[in-house]
Amino acid sequence: MPKKTLRVSKIKEGTVIDHITGGHALDVVKILGITGRTNGVVTVAMNVPSKGLKFKDIVKVEGRKLASDEVDKIALLAPRATINIIHNYKVVEKQRVKLPSVIRDIVKCANPACISNSNEPVQSTFYVDREEPLLLKCHYCGYVMEKQDVLKQF
Amino acid sequence: MPKKTLRVSKIKEGTVIDHITGGHALDVVKILGITGRTNGVVTVAMNVPSKGLKFKDIVKVEGRKLASDEVDKIALLAPRATINIIHNYKVVEKQRVKLPSVIRDIVKCANPACISNSNEPVQSTFYVDREEPLLLKCHYCGYVMEKQDVLKQF
Repeated sequence: MPKKTLRVSKIKEGTVIDHITGGHALDVVKILGITGRTNGVVTVAMNVPSKGLKFKDIVKVEGRKLASDEVDKIALLAPRATINIIHNYKVVEKQRVKLPSVIRDIVKCANPACISNSNEPVQSTFYVDREEPLLLKCHYCGYVMEKQDVLKQF
Repeated sequence: MPKKTLRVSKIKEGTVIDHITGGHALDVVKILGITGRTNGVVTVAMNVPSKGLKFKDIVKVEGRKLASDEVDKIALLAPRATINIIHNYKVVEKQRVKLPSVIRDIVKCANPACISNSNEPVQSTFYVDREEPLLLKCHYCGYVMEKQDVLKQF
């Protein structure tokens, strides 16, 4: 058995989310709404040794493209992930997720007293204080959210 | 690319949990305490077409054997699973999980008023009313637990 064998095999059609920070594949699976009760083959590899990242996770979703809000959410939790669209076993599109410095409308402030949680017409807005592990600072109330606070909302 | 390619590649050392009822791999991952923050390579395939089960899930845990209480818990959620111990890429031990008709000490009764939840020295005991989807009936109070009630405890 050669050492370079892929842990998870190639897929014919679908999306490969690669270079997920080691240990975050299950978060990505959650973002994609994959409970296992959903249809379609999904393969996951966790803690795979990787050159750039030391350890990385990979998620392969057969027969499905990701929606842009799903990509935005993945960027929050795995800011170095790459998203490859596969057609007939070939990568036809490659995309790196990008965490913008300002996050709007993807997550809600965890501070219930924040004005963005009132009935005011206010768009939730956060500044990225730190990419990894994630720290988001609310524009309105200054509340600092960690990754776990964000993950709870997905 | 031949059609019969394994979705998840062979492992050198560890445990393969195969024939998990389609959609339950993430439950098994939870039972094994795999959060992704744990060490060791874990690969998961969900909803793979299968002869016997229509769709099955597979979990491969590298460099680890399962404890007997982990096997008992897997039996509750995936009663048709097989557990293969792998050494040097070969199956050296094969075991089918078995759901006994009486379950003791693995789960607690979800009824807070049940005597098994008091300070009395009472061993939690359930009868398996249905294997799949799981229905457990408490010996003491007759409370019927579903799979979700059980899963919450793992």
